[in-house]
Amino acid sequence: MSTPTPSTSPSVILTGDRPTGPLHLGHYVGSLQNRVAYQHDYQQFIMLADAQALTDNMDDTGKVHRNVVEVALDYLAVGIDPAKSTILIQSQIPELAELTFYYLNLVTVARLERNPTVKAEIVLRGFERDIPAGFLTYPASQCADITAFKATLVPVGEDQIPMIEQTNEIVRRFNRTTGRDVLVECKALVPEIGRLPGIDGKAKMSKSLGNTINLGASAAEITAAVKKVYTDPLHLRVEDPGHLEGNIAFVYLDAFDPEKAALAEMKAHYVRGGLGDSIVKKRLEVVLQEMLAPIRARREELAKDRGYIMQVLKDGTAKAREVAARTADEVKAALGLSYF
Amino acid sequence: MSTPTPSTSPSVILTGDRPTGPLHLGHYVGSLQNRVAYQHDYQQFIMLADAQALTDNMDDTGKVHRNVVEVALDYLAVGIDPAKSTILIQSQIPELAELTFYYLNLVTVARLERNPTVKAEIVLRGFERDIPAGFLTYPASQCADITAFKATLVPVGEDQIPMIEQTNEIVRRFNRTTGRDVLVECKALVPEIGRLPGIDGKAKMSKSLGNTINLGASAAEITAAVKKVYTDPLHLRVEDPGHLEGNIAFVYLDAFDPEKAALAEMKAHYVRGGLGDSIVKKRLEVVLQEMLAPIRARREELAKDRGYIMQVLKDGTAKAREVAARTADEVKAALGLSYF
Repeated sequence: MSTPTPSTSPSVILTGDRPTGPLHLGHYVGSLQNRVAYQHDYQQFIMLADAQALTDNMDDTGKVHRNVVEVALDYLAVGIDPAKSTILIQSQIPELAELTFYYLNLVTVARLERNPTVKAEIVLRGFERDIPAGFLTYPASQCADITAFKATLVPVGEDQIPMIEQTNEIVRRFNRTTGRDVLVECKALVPEIGRLPGIDGKAKMSKSLGNTINLGASAAEITAAVKKVYTDPLHLRVEDPGHLEGNIAFVYLDAFDPEKAALAEMKAHYVRGGLGDSIVKKRLEVVLQEMLAPIRARREELAKDRGYIMQVLKDGTAKAREVAARTADEVKAALGLSYF
Repeated sequence: MSTPTPSTSPSVILTGDRPTGPLHLGHYVGSLQNRVAYQHDYQQFIMLADAQALTDNMDDTGKVHRNVVEVALDYLAVGIDPAKSTILIQSQIPELAELTFYYLNLVTVARLERNPTVKAEIVLRGFERDIPAGFLTYPASQCADITAFKATLVPVGEDQIPMIEQTNEIVRRFNRTTGRDVLVECKALVPEIGRLPGIDGKAKMSKSLGNTINLGASAAEITAAVKKVYTDPLHLRVEDPGHLEGNIAFVYLDAFDPEKAALAEMKAHYVRGGLGDSIVKKRLEVVLQEMLAPIRARREELAKDRGYIMQVLKDGTAKAREVAARTADEVKAALGLSYF
């Protein structure tokens, strides 16, 4: 990942997930691992964006509710430590909606419509003309989430950079309009490791594409998934030279196999010819089983104590709310909306 | 005004003003008088829509802040009784922004753009393509204000009826989507007495047109305003027959002169010829001075005790917030956003 600029005050990270399904290896590589590392050096807020998830899940709100706990389990299972990171539930902090409300006055409809991320997602979700207003305006909501915690670093994929730019536009406009330095600009923190492809070879691992391996996957599910992993379609006989590019088995081994030297040897053998896919997949299975077994075990252990999970969420949300409420007070004061 | 349908549970009224300037005779005729009457028979919430006022006043937030107290003074001076009506400050109830946030998912951008009231106001304010998002989405905010208090009656002008329709669309969609009867539909309560024209004869009395007589106007200001009141431009000589139509002096006398018989006589005389404008205006001045003197006196008396005004606003807002918070809890529960 790109190295965040050091500053005198400790950097604040805002990150999170829309709780619409269990997290998978794609999340692990793209964000969870980083969060586990970040939490030692930064003040980190991790948001379960349940309110945000409703923008395109109004027809299945139960799914969002259920997955809040599932995603929280994933967080704790991979090593996010609630004593170091603040895990919060978005909908339980009304100040985030309040900030959104005010920020909507600082961005024009035309500007929102030009936002490349919003444009791409409108196409992706097939909204066409029937875009829910909450979807068009979600950059303002994202700006609220970021600025409420005065986050200076926001880990995002390349495709989300326009959202960060939009946030900073609103921040600058707010500070300029009110003549006060209330809000803080943020930087995108784009991980160096790109997106993990799906087991089918598609560019993105995604629940809706059915090409994921979940963090909580059982041993049998892992075995079944590895069997389906896309390799080299031209590698028909063992003795044929194989290709590494687009070969998901090797992409995953690159990402997860801790034995780099043995992996390099295996790659060379594969390219040379004489190494069957089944051997490669066998290694991949060992690697994934070894990596996921302790995560699954922690997850199962934690899942037995729902009370503990809820307490973690409650405490994190309360702590986060204090920060957000302070920002909302400052924002309202700057807008002349303080009376009592 | 149209008679509200009686129902088994007492009707709830939601009404209010954008605090962007002192209230004037137009407000008095169009709404304040009705509110004074309604408060005996209905549960009435009167909202100082300061947050809403920002949608087109981000460049002068101080104006909004100042006018919250001014408008509250106007309310109390005309006889709105804080023991009977609940006066609240919109920005101090975060649940209103919260409800807005969720309702934005229940209305499409295209639908908002088709709203005739929004369309007309976009033209009126000269926004063209640079419409602040908060302005386009304000029907969702209005829906939040109405539904937070489960208002069944909303006093509005004819031109605001599309806003009420939009609110009811969101209400129906929410109840249908969640399968719960949480939100309540409302009816527009359109006053029979139309809009009071400005002193210059323009259809609307409006601060921005500079054709108002404020409720707190001094005796000298009333005198000066009456001098400027538009009458009959064809009534050049006293002996000429005069016209009543569009004659603002008579429009105001119709609205405010308690001596109906004498007024009828005066009108006949004017139409016949032989009655000068100065006599008509003299009567108008007497009527307005008599009507506004006690309001101004109460206003001046109340203005001395800012602490009392702030206490009224604080108490009303606290009471209203309890109701709105209950609704927001129900709304979030229906959306599956309850956890602790």
